[in-house]
Amino acid sequence: MVGVLLGVAVAFVVVKMWNNRIIEPDKDTKIVVDPSKVQGRGPDKAGYRSKYERLQKITSTTAARTPLQDLYGTITPSDLHFERHHAGIPEIDPEKHELLIHGLVEQPLVLKLKDLKRYPSVTRICFIECSGNFRYGKREMTPQEVCGLTSQSEWTGVLLSTILEEAGIKPQAEWFLAEGADGALMARSVPLKEALAEAMIAYAQNGEPIRPQQGYPMRLVIPGFEGNTQIKWLRRIELSEKPFMTREETSKYTEKIAKGKIRMFSLVMDARSIITYPAYPKKIEKGWHEIRGIAWSGRGKIKKVFISTDNGRKWNEAHLQGPVLEKAHTAFRYMWNWDGKPTRILSKAIDETGYIQPTYSQLVKARDSKGGYHFNPIVGWDIEKSGEVFLADVKDIK
Amino acid sequence: MVGVLLGVAVAFVVVKMWNNRIIEPDKDTKIVVDPSKVQGRGPDKAGYRSKYERLQKITSTTAARTPLQDLYGTITPSDLHFERHHAGIPEIDPEKHELLIHGLVEQPLVLKLKDLKRYPSVTRICFIECSGNFRYGKREMTPQEVCGLTSQSEWTGVLLSTILEEAGIKPQAEWFLAEGADGALMARSVPLKEALAEAMIAYAQNGEPIRPQQGYPMRLVIPGFEGNTQIKWLRRIELSEKPFMTREETSKYTEKIAKGKIRMFSLVMDARSIITYPAYPKKIEKGWHEIRGIAWSGRGKIKKVFISTDNGRKWNEAHLQGPVLEKAHTAFRYMWNWDGKPTRILSKAIDETGYIQPTYSQLVKARDSKGGYHFNPIVGWDIEKSGEVFLADVKDIK
Repeated sequence: MVGVLLGVAVAFVVVKMWNNRIIEPDKDTKIVVDPSKVQGRGPDKAGYRSKYERLQKITSTTAARTPLQDLYGTITPSDLHFERHHAGIPEIDPEKHELLIHGLVEQPLVLKLKDLKRYPSVTRICFIECSGNFRYGKREMTPQEVCGLTSQSEWTGVLLSTILEEAGIKPQAEWFLAEGADGALMARSVPLKEALAEAMIAYAQNGEPIRPQQGYPMRLVIPGFEGNTQIKWLRRIELSEKPFMTREETSKYTEKIAKGKIRMFSLVMDARSIITYPAYPKKIEKGWHEIRGIAWSGRGKIKKVFISTDNGRKWNEAHLQGPVLEKAHTAFRYMWNWDGKPTRILSKAIDETGYIQPTYSQLVKARDSKGGYHFNPIVGWDIEKSGEVFLADVKDIK
Repeated sequence: MVGVLLGVAVAFVVVKMWNNRIIEPDKDTKIVVDPSKVQGRGPDKAGYRSKYERLQKITSTTAARTPLQDLYGTITPSDLHFERHHAGIPEIDPEKHELLIHGLVEQPLVLKLKDLKRYPSVTRICFIECSGNFRYGKREMTPQEVCGLTSQSEWTGVLLSTILEEAGIKPQAEWFLAEGADGALMARSVPLKEALAEAMIAYAQNGEPIRPQQGYPMRLVIPGFEGNTQIKWLRRIELSEKPFMTREETSKYTEKIAKGKIRMFSLVMDARSIITYPAYPKKIEKGWHEIRGIAWSGRGKIKKVFISTDNGRKWNEAHLQGPVLEKAHTAFRYMWNWDGKPTRILSKAIDETGYIQPTYSQLVKARDSKGGYHFNPIVGWDIEKSGEVFLADVKDIK
């Protein structure tokens, strides 16, 4: 009986508080803020974001980083997809743009956007990541600053194999050059066999035509490969016996390995993960939190993500959001009841090949280098007694 | 030998033509248009669409329709998601917005956006469709005009079952009222059992916070249900024994069935499809085309889509883009070699329950009405000798 009375009293107070709340005037504008008392804005030709949410990329002269800490799920909004370009974003008239397929083919082809759209299309969700996607060095860094050069889209286009079947592949062809129409004539050599399995010439992203930043009117998408091979503003594919040794695969996009050697054509992105909440600059309170983030691998599906909330002493399996797709950002979550004591939280990805995301010290040993391309260490966040969250020192993660 | 020489000659001409092409001056601006000869624009805080692509919604005072004919794949860009509201779009400060859970629960709850984000989240791709999503009456109509009140997103939020487990459901509860914070106080009664299976209180859409047009800061998402039950700007959920009989389920959102009866609480969207290419206002040429479109069902997965290119005499199975998800827009395609003769193309969806998309005349007979809610007939396009494409007369589709 006392319980019932208490329940009724609580309900009464809750409803009362809630009713009072919605007629409280806005302190800044002196306007009654109850939105149910006014006619709202009518429809527009295009929607817009709430003014209470500030999502934007961090830009440099040649790149723009996705705000991972502000995103949910797995799709990156197209306007927030990371950018990395070598001579800016060209403005291309699709009526004037042509893709030449030549070299070791039976019959060269020239395709405009409208021609490409007449072939059978495919649609798939996958990530694209810049191979130079790791930064560290201070505590005040967001996920966007640490590894915001990865984004995910639903891509639609034509399989490269469909187009090359039309052109006819000569038997001696083993590589091809993909070249962009930007001022850098960005070009990379790609092994043909791997690309024939999955690569597409994409013309749409997240339902709409690819945006100029991502290669309008067409780009190469090679699921799992490093971003720079997925040539934007694609204008030429030349089949050949050998790689072309462009500047992007000699001076750039190579990395040191042990004993003074240099690794070239390290094309596939290794498994990786990052906790996007809680992360700098958030401040958290004691109690339950959903630790969430994304994990991905260029070699297939993410198999498991482990979370530690005690600086690596114990590792707990996170829940993966299904359907888990191949070569795709996979959302994970782990429910955590923070006791208010300082600690460090970490995430570690394992992909279906059995590859385990390495520590910073393992990478330094293997590469004889403290950074560079394909540097995918376990990272994490220090939770202070105040609830403030800072990037953990990677050198200190075992 | 002659073949080889011919091949070389063709390749030479192709390369020559292509080279000339890219240094051709733009006729309007007199500026050399080869984008590879100029430095492009640098990165921005947010990307933008190409000026050569014009995607926008068609608006009325209370709705905005998605440009289905301009989209690819299955995701609808968030700014192009259809809108239907009853008192405009409220502008809501998430710090002031509260969701009350009350009625037949053990313990009422009041949740702000930040509270909601502390519960375990789920992410899923599904469509939302307005139950009044069919228009016809003239030949010059686009897919957007015919059925542009359906859109698809990746939604992230908390399962309603998670929140109601926290509140405690009293045994006699069988329905709930969901109420929005807009000027219409849009409210619908929803059967509890069905909603507990899949409904979520969503706070994110396609990776980002839900936009104001779609219910910022939080909305109900009930996969497969008619759009008006998926209350936007959600502020109240009241559990009850019976439906509340709001105006939206008495005067609105009911439909006639045979023998003068009216059907209420027809909550689930039936299977449907539309060809989005070729469609009005496109004009096509003789030869190969990818007939493409989307199919969806509120009752589960799309099982098959059939395409007729001869006004229904023969039906051919279309290719469905995998992974085929439950209660989701599913992209289909069918390769068609148009011989240049006038014809009619049609699409017909079948879902995993065996439901077959009906004809207009079947619907008219069942409903004793020529339109209204849940009107999902087979539609198609007349291809004229000129290549022009017009909406086929639904009354004439068998």
